Amino acid sequence: MGILRKKGNAMKANAVIDTMLDHKSIRKYKGETPPDEVVESIVRAGQQAPFASQAYSVLLSRDMKHNPFKAPLLFTVCVDYHKFELIMKKRNWKPITNDLTLLFFGIEDASLMAENMVIAGRSLGLGSCFLGGAMFRAGKIAEEYELPKRVFPIVQLVMGYPAENPPPRPRYPMEYALFENKYPDLSESQVKEAMRVMDEGYLGQGYYRKQNAKIALETKNPKDNFTYDDYCWTEHICRKWGQWFPEPTELLVQLEKCGFHLNPKKKQERQKRTS
Amino acid sequence: MGILRKKGNAMKANAVIDTMLDHKSIRKYKGETPPDEVVESIVRAGQQAPFASQAYSVLLSRDMKHNPFKAPLLFTVCVDYHKFELIMKKRNWKPITNDLTLLFFGIEDASLMAENMVIAGRSLGLGSCFLGGAMFRAGKIAEEYELPKRVFPIVQLVMGYPAENPPPRPRYPMEYALFENKYPDLSESQVKEAMRVMDEGYLGQGYYRKQNAKIALETKNPKDNFTYDDYCWTEHICRKWGQWFPEPTELLVQLEKCGFHLNPKKKQERQKRTS
Repeated sequence: MGILRKKGNAMKANAVIDTMLDHKSIRKYKGETPPDEVVESIVRAGQQAPFASQAYSVLLSRDMKHNPFKAPLLFTVCVDYHKFELIMKKRNWKPITNDLTLLFFGIEDASLMAENMVIAGRSLGLGSCFLGGAMFRAGKIAEEYELPKRVFPIVQLVMGYPAENPPPRPRYPMEYALFENKYPDLSESQVKEAMRVMDEGYLGQGYYRKQNAKIALETKNPKDNFTYDDYCWTEHICRKWGQWFPEPTELLVQLEKCGFHLNPKKKQERQKRTS
Repeated sequence: MGILRKKGNAMKANAVIDTMLDHKSIRKYKGETPPDEVVESIVRAGQQAPFASQAYSVLLSRDMKHNPFKAPLLFTVCVDYHKFELIMKKRNWKPITNDLTLLFFGIEDASLMAENMVIAGRSLGLGSCFLGGAMFRAGKIAEEYELPKRVFPIVQLVMGYPAENPPPRPRYPMEYALFENKYPDLSESQVKEAMRVMDEGYLGQGYYRKQNAKIALETKNPKDNFTYDDYCWTEHICRKWGQWFPEPTELLVQLEKCGFHLNPKKKQERQKRTS
């Protein structure tokens, strides 16, 4: 395992790392609207992230009613191949790469940008919160913002000056996140320790209780015996990946609405239509 | 278009934003190995990014021969559902969510982490460079690091103290990246201006010439008339998305090797075998 894992390694600190370590999602905002230069600085910092092909666009809404936390800013971060395909046309190229590959690279590009925006915002005193469901409302978002085909919203990000100051949330122990040279056989005690850190941490902060954010059991049998005294992070995530979206259908429908075709036959039909 | 887009908005600056704006990929490194506390601080900062479900793992190699730029650190950032599935088992849950959805969320999680690592590294004096081809060498990487099934490498990141200091690379004008309220009809002049900024910028820096990084034309007819005097960013990206991977086959094969099944029939077979 190399020389990592020695207990008690000192952590390095500076303004950048402190800003990252102090990150937490903010769900209550002051009414004050950040000035334009703050918005542009955040997006500009996002743009300088390392990219495969800048396959992103950001849509901004300042309509506070538009988002669940009444934040003054709502960014919708999209995978965008529309605007590069305009460039390809100018250069007499035809797009040929399959959409699965484009989407994987595009989600990377858009996520790298989004993370810079979160941290840049934080450095200017703004809190933020990702709205993770954007992909499943992609068709609706595309209508709202009049997105052209080949633009797929992957995440929304609300931002504004925080009206709350929760603690940073727990994360896996580093022993469960970083492995040197080879991926270890994770022992029962490592798994249990990762669960303990996450669950005791979230319970101690009253995270789900404060948000009233329990995910319902989709079966009534057995009935849900969890209360906010024991409804914890690992239970919460189990209720996602143990219940949600057994089939990719919903996602494929949203992708189709945005002009991305993971079914090769449909892609051929599209190409026939447009050629 | 709202009140953005006024020319001459001042940009906000601070240590965090300066670090982001000064980002550039580094391809030459000093031999000096960063100490453990630097490595751990970088990974710890990565961990605090906002996640859907911490569906990432980071593999570290300090074998300098292991990477093309002989950097002292090579991080392989993976989408990891293996370790959460161990947790699900402990909680008596069975994974049900389809792999396409898990991969989309996982690529987000892993990318958010990777970007924090880039910026945290930079704040400690380390340069870095993404190796974008990891997804297409996933099976080989999985063998090298003995990755269990359900772990898919999406990006590799070399890091170390820089032995070069190139300028930050150009990015699209903000008018081509940020849109307020609705996605505009991009005019011919906007497309041309975006191309100009990128192409003149990269040519002015001699980027592709210095790296000798021309992507070959896959057809010999017409023959490649571009030299490093006019081989520019938009041409480079056109040669990717206009030539590479017409079919998703290569990616699907790598995903299969790592235990991710986007073909629903194969998923059923797997479930039959393991139940």
